[in-house]
Amino acid sequence: MNDAEYMKMALELARRGWGYTSPNPMVGAVVVRDGAVVGKGWHAVVGGAHAEVNAIDDAGDRARGADLYVTLEPCNHTGRTPPCTEKILSAGIRRVFVAMDDPNPLVAGGGSDYLRSRGIPVVTGILEADALRLNEVFVKYASTRQPFVVLKCAATLDGRVATRTGDARWVTGEASRAHVHHLRHGLDGILVGIGTVLADDPSLTTRLEDGNGLDPTRIILDSRLSIPEDAKVLNVASNAGALIATGESASAEKARRLEQKGARVLRIPQFPDGGLDLGALMQRLGEAGISSVLVEGGSRVMASALKAGIADKIMFFYAPKILGGDDGFPICRGEAPSLMRDCTPVRDVAVHRFGEDVMIEGYLAGGRRTGDSDGT
Amino acid sequence: MNDAEYMKMALELARRGWGYTSPNPMVGAVVVRDGAVVGKGWHAVVGGAHAEVNAIDDAGDRARGADLYVTLEPCNHTGRTPPCTEKILSAGIRRVFVAMDDPNPLVAGGGSDYLRSRGIPVVTGILEADALRLNEVFVKYASTRQPFVVLKCAATLDGRVATRTGDARWVTGEASRAHVHHLRHGLDGILVGIGTVLADDPSLTTRLEDGNGLDPTRIILDSRLSIPEDAKVLNVASNAGALIATGESASAEKARRLEQKGARVLRIPQFPDGGLDLGALMQRLGEAGISSVLVEGGSRVMASALKAGIADKIMFFYAPKILGGDDGFPICRGEAPSLMRDCTPVRDVAVHRFGEDVMIEGYLAGGRRTGDSDGT
Repeated sequence: MNDAEYMKMALELARRGWGYTSPNPMVGAVVVRDGAVVGKGWHAVVGGAHAEVNAIDDAGDRARGADLYVTLEPCNHTGRTPPCTEKILSAGIRRVFVAMDDPNPLVAGGGSDYLRSRGIPVVTGILEADALRLNEVFVKYASTRQPFVVLKCAATLDGRVATRTGDARWVTGEASRAHVHHLRHGLDGILVGIGTVLADDPSLTTRLEDGNGLDPTRIILDSRLSIPEDAKVLNVASNAGALIATGESASAEKARRLEQKGARVLRIPQFPDGGLDLGALMQRLGEAGISSVLVEGGSRVMASALKAGIADKIMFFYAPKILGGDDGFPICRGEAPSLMRDCTPVRDVAVHRFGEDVMIEGYLAGGRRTGDSDGT
Repeated sequence: MNDAEYMKMALELARRGWGYTSPNPMVGAVVVRDGAVVGKGWHAVVGGAHAEVNAIDDAGDRARGADLYVTLEPCNHTGRTPPCTEKILSAGIRRVFVAMDDPNPLVAGGGSDYLRSRGIPVVTGILEADALRLNEVFVKYASTRQPFVVLKCAATLDGRVATRTGDARWVTGEASRAHVHHLRHGLDGILVGIGTVLADDPSLTTRLEDGNGLDPTRIILDSRLSIPEDAKVLNVASNAGALIATGESASAEKARRLEQKGARVLRIPQFPDGGLDLGALMQRLGEAGISSVLVEGGSRVMASALKAGIADKIMFFYAPKILGGDDGFPICRGEAPSLMRDCTPVRDVAVHRFGEDVMIEGYLAGGRRTGDSDGT
């Protein structure tokens, strides 16, 4: 195996932390000695040991004189755990291979430079694009303190997310819906408009096939606090809370009642047309420690998120069916540019299949480029 | 090389006839002796020699005792050319491998049975799905005398084919547009609604990169004959004609003037709402020798074609951009089902990339299944 293959193994290990490490990154590491992998580790849960420590502990005495492959620059500071650089030095690691530097401005360069100053060769940039992509949420949040925002929809091939009666059960197939729950598990927040709550009364919780899974914080855009107190998002059994984003002038009495039910109410500035300032909301969510948000609709919220420039990524699922008219619900609702060249461009487009469905994902100009397309 | 690899080579040769063989199929053949390909041929142009004949002639004396791989059952009747079965026998071919039987009810089984009766082993079904797909137009037309109908659109990821002002230049990129011209070259007819002619005044001709290319017959749905006499579709220099499908009561005087300009005017039954009966139109087009039709829009024509059940295949091109509202032109316009489960299902979905665009193709229930998905 070569450097890239060891790093690929480390990236696969990192992925096992999906959902459990936020706001930390997912990190994986392997220890290689005489061409054999003698230790594997990953960052399994926020607050737990770092990947390098787990891999070195897994290798035991065999770490002495071995090479370490790690998907993120080792930390050089004492946080919830001691610095990984000291662990690397005390274990007798010979060389360190790193996929990407730490994007945190407080950390950048520190770990690698420190190791080099202590005589350990450090090679960086191996599968960097893959590492950046794996941790695209962390990369944005660590450097901006704003959440990474994903717009998700499930549409027919002619771009309808529901029929004129609002029927949307189901647009896409089981494999796509399972992947959406995988996303809910991995992202910190899920955001929908009050229209979706009133129409569908969704739970917005995570339902993974094996029953485990972390729920995202349920974020409802509700400028006039018209959410019914018996809405599922306010009452569902969940390991995460509900957060209602509303306007400055919404009823204080209703806000109190919602807070008594355990929901958090955030007052957000409004535009003259009454719409909530989503940029300001993202700022507030970031301050609250929410590093990523999955926007699931409805059509007006999708359009507003695009207009506000808060979206980093789209994941549009298309089902193999055609509604055949224009009276159903569109992917985006509202006024659009008059010229095709003024569309919102999507770059690094990749295509994935989920059963018979097709998922197109890509990045928006507002989002950071965090890796190359791996699509087909 | 094994049987499948030789047949794959024959299928590649067959593809060279794209556009030039209609209403005949594309056919390729290779002659193999002692493990070496000693002859190649394909059906290059309607009325020209069949693939088997070209391959055997290419092999010359080496055809004696050799195996023949051919993508379609050899013909056993005298049409524009003598029967291929006689050529195979007189050349001393030892065995014949066939991808698919001839779907023409007048021919089916004839060639293979005849060869077997003369002592030549015939193996059929090698890469049959690929052969059926390659000749999906021929398969439908030979067995039903109705054209194979492809619905094509170019849309944003949120399903808009033009902005509210009608701007659609361009939605998709160069590679997609080049592929559409490849389709126009290969299919017999191109169909649009009068709305598209009035809004865009398109030429609907074929523009291949190398300058060659056959134009499809330009078919305009124009129930009231409101087409301007200076429309490009009526006046463009072209190796194909224009055909105006109109209602029974449209102006005879206007029809005469259009015919004087060289257009053909077809009177088609209308539904009570004034819409042309597209099923009846397809019947008439089939009788006129048009074996395939590319439907390019607009939105109402797409919806009508779906409702009429005339469509066999869709090819939807999605550009990496989002219009972001619902005031642009949708892929389909008009009334749609009220339940998601009543959508038109699309099967055998395959995905192709053209530059940064994504093309999703698939088959409609009305269409015949003619091969497995080769998508990713």
